[in-house]
Amino acid sequence: MARTIKKTEKIISDAVVNRLPRYFRFLSELRRAGVERTSSTELSVLMGATASQIRQDLNCFGGFGQQGYGYSVPYLYENIASILGVDRDYRAIIVGTGNLGRALASSPVFEKRGVHVTALFDVDEKLIDTTFCGFRIKNMAELEAYCEKERPDIAVLTVPRGAAKDTAERLVAAGVKGIWNFTNIELTPDKAMVQNVHLGDTLMTLCYNVRKNEEQKKGTDAEDGSEEV
Amino acid sequence: MARTIKKTEKIISDAVVNRLPRYFRFLSELRRAGVERTSSTELSVLMGATASQIRQDLNCFGGFGQQGYGYSVPYLYENIASILGVDRDYRAIIVGTGNLGRALASSPVFEKRGVHVTALFDVDEKLIDTTFCGFRIKNMAELEAYCEKERPDIAVLTVPRGAAKDTAERLVAAGVKGIWNFTNIELTPDKAMVQNVHLGDTLMTLCYNVRKNEEQKKGTDAEDGSEEV
Repeated sequence: MARTIKKTEKIISDAVVNRLPRYFRFLSELRRAGVERTSSTELSVLMGATASQIRQDLNCFGGFGQQGYGYSVPYLYENIASILGVDRDYRAIIVGTGNLGRALASSPVFEKRGVHVTALFDVDEKLIDTTFCGFRIKNMAELEAYCEKERPDIAVLTVPRGAAKDTAERLVAAGVKGIWNFTNIELTPDKAMVQNVHLGDTLMTLCYNVRKNEEQKKGTDAEDGSEEV
Repeated sequence: MARTIKKTEKIISDAVVNRLPRYFRFLSELRRAGVERTSSTELSVLMGATASQIRQDLNCFGGFGQQGYGYSVPYLYENIASILGVDRDYRAIIVGTGNLGRALASSPVFEKRGVHVTALFDVDEKLIDTTFCGFRIKNMAELEAYCEKERPDIAVLTVPRGAAKDTAERLVAAGVKGIWNFTNIELTPDKAMVQNVHLGDTLMTLCYNVRKNEEQKKGTDAEDGSEEV
């Protein structure tokens, strides 16, 4: 997406948006360490980017820096938190309470980002009505009635891949605005935002880098004998 | 990383490397559906990229396409699998067997990518020597001896964040070549490759997109009344 800046409107690129959570993470660390001020140079070391890119990124959000002073950590933190919607109190439901659903339900990942899990759903009779992390696991048959009443913003989709599409359609029809999708099926519904998480992709990138690193250490060409790819 | 092409060596950019697992995923789907041939146009629809970018990406790996025929799905699949090291039989250990460690241990994410989990480790006396997914959970005190004997390639790090750095150092000293890091602490050891997974980042990006989408639907400016960021 190209970045265009109008007088009363800034549209920022997906690339910058995707970097924002990292800024938020590093600023959280600085804040936790009691650091009051930072600079584009310091942030560039933390982020592994150039100071100029940092300044450019932060300028997209109204240029919170001051020359000779740098950036106020709490101010920058609050602003990026607000841009990311961390102060919004989103409500989320977890759909699919297998190992991954339960791991997410019991992790601090939601609360730290202003997202509150309000219910867990499953189709498995053995799990329905059992309690996990203080939640009574609900029957998927109750989904529509629940959504109509409680209006969750986000659904965390951790159902088996075969059930991914149908479940996503039900969630969108029930008014869910965003799907955090762990099913490894790429979902692209019209009426809701989706963040597809493909854990396996990062594992494969790691495997690739391990292999490259070993080859470089050995100082040899790749297996095909002619090309290092 | 800039892309430079020498006669006997191709160095490809991180951006292309990061896209490879996605190619692999889509090619797996085509292969599963029995599709024999594909084109840069078809791949571009699946990948959400231009056909020209697809051709450019695939050319980095030796240009497997043929004019008028396109790409052979099995051939492209095998080649990308090989480049990614899926045919390497990497051995992995999972360090930290809390909810996330157990969710990963019981997921198909490893086997599908040629990675074999060989052991699980924890420090918790209540978990040590219990069995999960056919593994007897080992005591972290046994880590070094185990690594010396079994030479695992990859460690999946799912310990609490406070233990992240020390554990990573022990793993690298014990000869582990890659760390798949779920601790939310950015690790950058010298002697091993790391893939830092920050699940929360994608949740925040989703929250941001949900908010943007709502604002666009309302057709109003952002909360500050003047700028949409």
